[in-house]
Amino acid sequence: MRAAHFIAPGEIDVQDFPDPVVQSPTDAVVRVVASCVCGSDLWPWRGIQQRREGRIGHEFLGVVTDVGADVTTVKPGQVVIAPFVISCGECVHCKAGWTTSCLRGSGWGHKDKEGIPADGGQSEAIRVPLADGTLVAAPVDENDERIPALLTLSDVMGTGHHAALHAGVGPGSTVAVVGDGAVGLCAVLAAKRLGAERIIALSRYEDRQQLVRQFGATDIVASRDADALAEIMALTDEVGVDATCECVGTTQSWETALDITRPGGTVGYVGVPSGVEGGGLPLRKMFGRNVSVSGGVAPARVYLPELLADVLDGSLDPGPVFTSELPLSDVADAYRAMDERRSVKVLLRP
Amino acid sequence: MRAAHFIAPGEIDVQDFPDPVVQSPTDAVVRVVASCVCGSDLWPWRGIQQRREGRIGHEFLGVVTDVGADVTTVKPGQVVIAPFVISCGECVHCKAGWTTSCLRGSGWGHKDKEGIPADGGQSEAIRVPLADGTLVAAPVDENDERIPALLTLSDVMGTGHHAALHAGVGPGSTVAVVGDGAVGLCAVLAAKRLGAERIIALSRYEDRQQLVRQFGATDIVASRDADALAEIMALTDEVGVDATCECVGTTQSWETALDITRPGGTVGYVGVPSGVEGGGLPLRKMFGRNVSVSGGVAPARVYLPELLADVLDGSLDPGPVFTSELPLSDVADAYRAMDERRSVKVLLRP
Repeated sequence: MRAAHFIAPGEIDVQDFPDPVVQSPTDAVVRVVASCVCGSDLWPWRGIQQRREGRIGHEFLGVVTDVGADVTTVKPGQVVIAPFVISCGECVHCKAGWTTSCLRGSGWGHKDKEGIPADGGQSEAIRVPLADGTLVAAPVDENDERIPALLTLSDVMGTGHHAALHAGVGPGSTVAVVGDGAVGLCAVLAAKRLGAERIIALSRYEDRQQLVRQFGATDIVASRDADALAEIMALTDEVGVDATCECVGTTQSWETALDITRPGGTVGYVGVPSGVEGGGLPLRKMFGRNVSVSGGVAPARVYLPELLADVLDGSLDPGPVFTSELPLSDVADAYRAMDERRSVKVLLRP
Repeated sequence: MRAAHFIAPGEIDVQDFPDPVVQSPTDAVVRVVASCVCGSDLWPWRGIQQRREGRIGHEFLGVVTDVGADVTTVKPGQVVIAPFVISCGECVHCKAGWTTSCLRGSGWGHKDKEGIPADGGQSEAIRVPLADGTLVAAPVDENDERIPALLTLSDVMGTGHHAALHAGVGPGSTVAVVGDGAVGLCAVLAAKRLGAERIIALSRYEDRQQLVRQFGATDIVASRDADALAEIMALTDEVGVDATCECVGTTQSWETALDITRPGGTVGYVGVPSGVEGGGLPLRKMFGRNVSVSGGVAPARVYLPELLADVLDGSLDPGPVFTSELPLSDVADAYRAMDERRSVKVLLRP
């Protein structure tokens, strides 16, 4: 079978690999129906973050083809969604709702706790460790038109939800979303879903502004830095927003996120902090105005059942974040299209 | 009348000043009954923070001697407690509960928004701007034995409460308190008051360990850094604490606070971040484990009525944070005693 293979910054191809098999009684094997490229995959591709050569991709859904003897919650033939972190569902952190801190878990494309490499999801098929804890079955056919929407639940929709939830968004909130990538778009959807009255999206690109409006933004701010701050203060009677979703992760986006949040407000953040200088948040800026910072790597597995129900009943459709679709064989084109902002997010079909 | 006068790092004396008078219809004049030295006063005294020459002190209570024509909530003869920030009580931020971001407010010892210098509280008497918004009357006599406890409500008790509240402390919580200064001690009291089941205090000094126990700590960790982390992980079955109160504000204390908090937990912080290198929080450390950071400069005015009620009914007694008492004329000794850790906090009587 074929799978994407990360070689070095700017270099990715598709290679042949042995068909995955059940190696542990808690494994499942999944034939991938759809996978995709994450904004965070672009960091190593751009050479900004180190990554070893090997399989890549942490967002996928597919059909179960085999399960180990101990697997009880999914069975062959079912469509399943994989969140972007492998988790057992049974340890103290999983039980507390923090599957991303699972004591037995690991990440796709990395080695698991037993030292066995976990496959990457940009692939035709994949071995899923800790299948009961990790996978969520979706009662749909693999040809369902909602496959793109369902695929977002493996990462970006759960991540956008995490940002909005941890920013404290609720009925009547005034919210700002910093970042108009797939996660920022999903944060707009999530803020609307949580009852925000006003959603100000910081978005500079016309194609994305359209999506942002479609997803529920009430105002768009296309400027940056001091200009963006001035515009948002003007839009909020010089108060600032109640809640900000930080979906970028750079020093510049953080400065803006903290500045536009009203005293006592919260920045819910999910942007991988690859671009923050010295890894540091400006604590003094937070201190004087009591701006809280909450979030981190989203426990997508925890949010999956709730968001899945909304996708299935038609009340939530993050599918449009996929602005293009390519065969897995064109994976290098997919990375380039996202790097060059020709596509918000590319869905890959094996 | 006499008042403390900050000259330069290490230099403070008591000088004669004109008796304060009502300058604006919203002013009150207060004869100070008790004031004190704050840990944050030590920063300029040590030369770590810049401060211009002039009056100092932001924690005091006293008896109202005169009020301006527009003052309606306090009257001459009443004992009143002043929180450490002057606030109007009427602007959008005050109404939202963030008196520390008051649009008309200012700080003791600094100029107010109209350019009039606000007096310092380490003094025999003081002009209080925006008296209705700022002061809270306490139904006690100026010789009441609870004066020390009531004085803590002007800053340290409200600040400790802010840390615990924003750390998310509630019934059954496992809490760590980093810092055994007056604010850390009050955070222990606040955590107990909010229902914490287990309170682990990081305290290195024997005299403070006794107070910490008296205030409700269930465990004491006297080590630092990696040793403190190992001890706290052992005390919590390798999980970490639910909530951490950061009451110091240095790079070292922040590292510890973030490390000992369990995934998904919160650091409630109130330590003035004077000592944090580059002003930066280690965002990567927060991101991977979803540790939230919430807090800042405490809106003591907002918490005052609630905490006052508990002091008056005898259920809360932060008075013991004052481990010594000096006359105002010995203010320089008071600073030295706190700087040299001979006293946790010094109460000053005019």
